[in-house]
Amino acid sequence: MSATNIFYAQSGGATAVINASACGVIEAARDSAPSIGTVYAGKNGILGALKEELIDTSQESAEHIAALRHTPASAFGSCRYKLKNPEEDDSEYRRLLEVFAAHDIGYFFYNGGGDSQDTAHKVSVISRKMNYPLVCIGIPKTIDNDLPFTDNSPGFGSVAKYIAISIREAALDVACMAATSTKVFLLEVMGRHAGWIAAAAGLNKQQESDAPHLILFPEIPFNIGTFLKKVDITVKKYGYCVIAVSEGVKDQEGRFIHQSGLNDSFGHAQLGGVAPILSQSIYSQLGYKNHWAVSDYLQRAARHIAAKTDVEQAYALGRAAVTHALKGTTDIMLTIERMTGPGYHWTIGTVPLEEVANAEFKTPRDFITEEGFDITQKCRHYLEPLISGEDYPPYVNGLPDYVRLKNILKPKIIDR
Amino acid sequence: MSATNIFYAQSGGATAVINASACGVIEAARDSAPSIGTVYAGKNGILGALKEELIDTSQESAEHIAALRHTPASAFGSCRYKLKNPEEDDSEYRRLLEVFAAHDIGYFFYNGGGDSQDTAHKVSVISRKMNYPLVCIGIPKTIDNDLPFTDNSPGFGSVAKYIAISIREAALDVACMAATSTKVFLLEVMGRHAGWIAAAAGLNKQQESDAPHLILFPEIPFNIGTFLKKVDITVKKYGYCVIAVSEGVKDQEGRFIHQSGLNDSFGHAQLGGVAPILSQSIYSQLGYKNHWAVSDYLQRAARHIAAKTDVEQAYALGRAAVTHALKGTTDIMLTIERMTGPGYHWTIGTVPLEEVANAEFKTPRDFITEEGFDITQKCRHYLEPLISGEDYPPYVNGLPDYVRLKNILKPKIIDR
Repeated sequence: MSATNIFYAQSGGATAVINASACGVIEAARDSAPSIGTVYAGKNGILGALKEELIDTSQESAEHIAALRHTPASAFGSCRYKLKNPEEDDSEYRRLLEVFAAHDIGYFFYNGGGDSQDTAHKVSVISRKMNYPLVCIGIPKTIDNDLPFTDNSPGFGSVAKYIAISIREAALDVACMAATSTKVFLLEVMGRHAGWIAAAAGLNKQQESDAPHLILFPEIPFNIGTFLKKVDITVKKYGYCVIAVSEGVKDQEGRFIHQSGLNDSFGHAQLGGVAPILSQSIYSQLGYKNHWAVSDYLQRAARHIAAKTDVEQAYALGRAAVTHALKGTTDIMLTIERMTGPGYHWTIGTVPLEEVANAEFKTPRDFITEEGFDITQKCRHYLEPLISGEDYPPYVNGLPDYVRLKNILKPKIIDR
Repeated sequence: MSATNIFYAQSGGATAVINASACGVIEAARDSAPSIGTVYAGKNGILGALKEELIDTSQESAEHIAALRHTPASAFGSCRYKLKNPEEDDSEYRRLLEVFAAHDIGYFFYNGGGDSQDTAHKVSVISRKMNYPLVCIGIPKTIDNDLPFTDNSPGFGSVAKYIAISIREAALDVACMAATSTKVFLLEVMGRHAGWIAAAAGLNKQQESDAPHLILFPEIPFNIGTFLKKVDITVKKYGYCVIAVSEGVKDQEGRFIHQSGLNDSFGHAQLGGVAPILSQSIYSQLGYKNHWAVSDYLQRAARHIAAKTDVEQAYALGRAAVTHALKGTTDIMLTIERMTGPGYHWTIGTVPLEEVANAEFKTPRDFITEEGFDITQKCRHYLEPLISGEDYPPYVNGLPDYVRLKNILKPKIIDR
């Protein structure tokens, strides 16, 4: 194969560890020269290929590339952009291959969630159809942990750790003031369709009286009456109540709470999250002073408290993409496989991209207790290793020393 | 003096480091036996004295007391409770002294903000009037950093660090997605009357294009038109805009934004913070997709990323209270004094409690730029040392190993 360059693109929402995958790809590629040429990263993900905006990572020092491992978000830019369905219009796919050909790209690594894996597969199919030799490899990434076939997805473990720690810390705060002040605290967490992040809050619970006293999952239909009753019982029993609520919690009809009219029934319009709506209900119905927090992007960008396991997996997946590329394995997504036996051990596997395409890995029902407000031992057993270990970034003047790359574009060949 | 026991009480909102002060008090007291007897901690702060609920800290192991240094919130419970004005009704003060006498309390350490220092002073005055020999020492604590005479207040540095890091991380997230997704991000921070915490967000800015692009201070009257214009200009210039907004931001008439009717003028009722209200305005007036976060208690309980300087100061103040108690210095609040000269050095001083009583240390006008949306170099110079250093707690199974004390009550003598 004459085209030895890699095109690497980051896709969708940022995570604390996606740059660790980029670091793995670039470091392994440099170790593999001259079999592998240059790693070009798409400026703003796949858009970089469509616009022929290729960041030349060879212009970055080894030190800066190493620093990607401890830098959150997408260092080359990312995007939310879904290519058109090639059966209706394959012009974008043809454009991709034209850019790849012009820049001697023989390897396409797409680092993202379900949609991105689907795109990577379609690129693979079309490259074969057009006789363009291209190795297509999907590197998993999503804080939602909803990718199938992989035991877990990089990005999730660090969010899970952040949320479990936040619950632990906020619960200590609420508990010590509950006698005369705030009695209920709600933390709204991400995960619009899968309750994995909400489940992670449950890791704080070591005994029955510990927070979170209630977890609201998107998978469990929400009933305001049952909820308020549980809150009231908890406050009466323990003096306070800490709740982790998924932004994706839905009512019996499957409507998101903040679109469900529940807010209106309490006379309030929706402004943002579900936490303030529930806060209002708790106050107006039960009279408990309460506070709420919405972590939003803070949770997925929190590299300062990333899980070591998560960082190591993200980095290893990046390196493994290069290893598989050299072997010529194509049309696959890399996966994390949990090994059997005592303790937690993992290895990297592969799955055909075709099988991944747009499947979803939801929180299994037996990971949630029958009542629907807590996680089971089985869930805890699955989650616990994913938040293990700390991997602190270096600090300068009290702040994490995250790297800023130069991000120099390769001169255009087609559109010059 | 025959009464050698200490009564120590934690007051008001929790912080990441107030237990470090408790640790300092108890460790120094143990080192000073037999001159100092037992440290009794009020269960839920001053309420513990009023109810004769005294936690016997001698029942805790040295290891557990040492672990207080890395455990957030108030380990003995705190409260929001202001004693009655003794000029109208001094029964609560008499009750305090009765309890102190019954339990051989010769030292009263009150660990809190402005109100608590005022109470400590009143207790001191009344004890003198009643000829009860009592050393009263205030140990400063407040995330709001609004205590006068002290260079800074323990608890603030760690919140400041958390907020500056959160802005740094969220800004990387927003920046990398702004081409196709969220263009504006708001982080609402605490500080109802003083803009210290909002100012801390400014520490992330290393160059003009860095976040936060706008800081909204409670000290600067808010004008929606000016604000929206600035947001629009920033997005057009840098592609995105990150805003730190104080929960205490007020309009020209001094009304909090979420009580000002601004929300109604956009057709939305208020549900919680100011961030969702501004988010709505940005979307409806400028059309920019935006996200917001409200850290609430997470910011003040975030011991996992506490500033080392803050922990050291909180601990040293606890120890210093015992040193001063042994000297018999009374009716004082301990202070942190910044030493002159190159580099950052501090020492512990004292100020008469009478002078502290209910004064406030607001963000000086020359710490905020003339336009009112950023901090000045002078402010940065003041703040930077306060967030310096990391002081990580130990971890078990991926979570910080915070201590749970036994909190065994001393048998009652009066109310038995």
